Amino acid sequence: MKRQNVRTLSLIVCTFTYLLVGAAVFDALESEYEMREKEQLEAEEKRLQGKYNISDEDYRQLETIIMEAEPHRAGVQWKFAGSFYFAITVITTIGYGHAAPGTDAGKAFCMFYAVLGIPLTLVMFQSLGERMNTFVKYLLKRIKKCCGMSVTDVSMENMVTVGFFSCIGTLCVGAAAFSHYEDWSFFQSYYYCFITLTTIGFGDFVALQKNRALQRKPLYVAFSFMYILVGLTVIGAFLNLVVLRFLTMNSEDERRDAEERASLAGRRNSMIIHIQYEASLPVKWEIGGIGGGRMGGLGCGFTKQNSFSSQLNPNQYFQSVSYRIEEISPSTLKNSFFPSPVSSVSPGLHSFMDHRRLMKRRKSV
Amino acid sequence: MKRQNVRTLSLIVCTFTYLLVGAAVFDALESEYEMREKEQLEAEEKRLQGKYNISDEDYRQLETIIMEAEPHRAGVQWKFAGSFYFAITVITTIGYGHAAPGTDAGKAFCMFYAVLGIPLTLVMFQSLGERMNTFVKYLLKRIKKCCGMSVTDVSMENMVTVGFFSCIGTLCVGAAAFSHYEDWSFFQSYYYCFITLTTIGFGDFVALQKNRALQRKPLYVAFSFMYILVGLTVIGAFLNLVVLRFLTMNSEDERRDAEERASLAGRRNSMIIHIQYEASLPVKWEIGGIGGGRMGGLGCGFTKQNSFSSQLNPNQYFQSVSYRIEEISPSTLKNSFFPSPVSSVSPGLHSFMDHRRLMKRRKSV
Repeated sequence: MKRQNVRTLSLIVCTFTYLLVGAAVFDALESEYEMREKEQLEAEEKRLQGKYNISDEDYRQLETIIMEAEPHRAGVQWKFAGSFYFAITVITTIGYGHAAPGTDAGKAFCMFYAVLGIPLTLVMFQSLGERMNTFVKYLLKRIKKCCGMSVTDVSMENMVTVGFFSCIGTLCVGAAAFSHYEDWSFFQSYYYCFITLTTIGFGDFVALQKNRALQRKPLYVAFSFMYILVGLTVIGAFLNLVVLRFLTMNSEDERRDAEERASLAGRRNSMIIHIQYEASLPVKWEIGGIGGGRMGGLGCGFTKQNSFSSQLNPNQYFQSVSYRIEEISPSTLKNSFFPSPVSSVSPGLHSFMDHRRLMKRRKSV
Repeated sequence: MKRQNVRTLSLIVCTFTYLLVGAAVFDALESEYEMREKEQLEAEEKRLQGKYNISDEDYRQLETIIMEAEPHRAGVQWKFAGSFYFAITVITTIGYGHAAPGTDAGKAFCMFYAVLGIPLTLVMFQSLGERMNTFVKYLLKRIKKCCGMSVTDVSMENMVTVGFFSCIGTLCVGAAAFSHYEDWSFFQSYYYCFITLTTIGFGDFVALQKNRALQRKPLYVAFSFMYILVGLTVIGAFLNLVVLRFLTMNSEDERRDAEERASLAGRRNSMIIHIQYEASLPVKWEIGGIGGGRMGGLGCGFTKQNSFSSQLNPNQYFQSVSYRIEEISPSTLKNSFFPSPVSSVSPGLHSFMDHRRLMKRRKSV
């Protein structure tokens, strides 16, 4: 089976297995607590409902209005600051849900907003993350030089280590800040930062929802927004370093297969000569083959790029192939009617390579 | 300024502007509704609190327990089916929050689970999405052939069109299904599918939370899980097609710059000859340069790969360069002590290329 298909099937199996294992562990960790909490809450609800003799119908109504009033209790969600916060949760796909569009127009706009905003944000974070990685690589190189190390090259291991500790550091800084401002424990805060920066965004912990912070604490609001954006960049940089290469594996294999198929299909026993050179002016190039005393042109042209290729015709047998490159100076370009001063081609046997014997050997394989 | 930096800064400015515009629009669409709803809810709460003469303290207690009881009202969340659903929302980063770990152990495991699961899932969806794109490309080609079209190549526009309509189709199928099972309007269902498949996952609409579906409707549960995973693949395939290439722009520019710097730094006026050939056996290769009557070896070796390269030494002037390839048959490999039967090298002037004149011309530029 093709490598890409094997890889894809393996990944599917791995992911499905991972889900099964996760489900089993979460079941084991949370089921009992859920049952206990459910019993406690039901008992407390019965007590209060009984204390005030609230009818079932009114109690269900109370449930509905208390649920719907939750975002309002947390603050004004849709003034500019709250809307900006919401917009961040949309395009970063965090999606806490602490506030969600109530109107149909809001829902519809939200969808269009996401369609453009999510790819834009993805590309922005990867771009900024790559810049961050490049800068870190430069810093590490300077540090290695200053420390007088013999090898100043920055390895992948160095980068991954720095990236990993940057992520941990970012989470710790956020955990410290939010535990102070939101009155959460350090662990709850760390969990909030993690769930936010991985863009999972459960919404069980949401910053800026206490004490009308969105309206009353502009500096804390600005800090929260910056933290989310910078934190996502740090995570994005780490993903850019470690994961991005794996996202293109299948495409690269597919491209390689296509090239192989193309060369097998019509160009058996062919050879491609690819010449790469360093020149500051455009050049005129020529590749010629010599076989049996004759000089055959294989390709020629004019190129501004730093390389040119030519494919050998499988029906022609050459004993050697040579190339010629001539820089075109500006004066030559202007006077293009006059032939360029180049060496004349001189034919001659050159039995450096026995292409025909090579052909015979292949047929016997 | 470097291209990568300009690109990154532009993206940052674009994203920030996009957030400002989004915030303004959401404010305009939702603020008034929010105020109206808040007033209505407050009035209704006052009415009920007054009707039963519930003390403020008891009312706040009621608020707390009703909020905490919400997931329990929606069903049993942490048995195997519910845990599997939760695990999906973690590794896909949808993160509805309809259920969230109550225990500290659950929160801690959730974080470790996400650290491994999210990259695994990203790579899996991209891999599967690429396979899907390849298959669609193959189908389109066959369809074009069957329809007797002159051009059977599948263009990027074809692929993007098919991808786009696949996404819309997937959303519509889900919208129809969930509006039936969850008793939502088609629009609310479509909005739910969109928010889910973009992994935003607000949690304002969550499937499998009515009528104890997680325990009582295994087929519907299976459908929901499959819908999320297949839907994410379709979206992932579309992103793979359209967005993935932009995620590597900076890295590719950086690599190109590094190559340019390297060639400027120490290899001025150098040339690299790269030969690509088609052979089924490993080969022994040799590149030689001829200049001033002498044959100079430029490189030789043994390779199983389909190409080899050699860099010309800038201090040596050659008038021509030739290469030799010899397939190594299994019998030759076994008898590696005996020299391989190849053509002998015969020296000879070959003034096909005047390299020295080329060098002179460069110096004058």
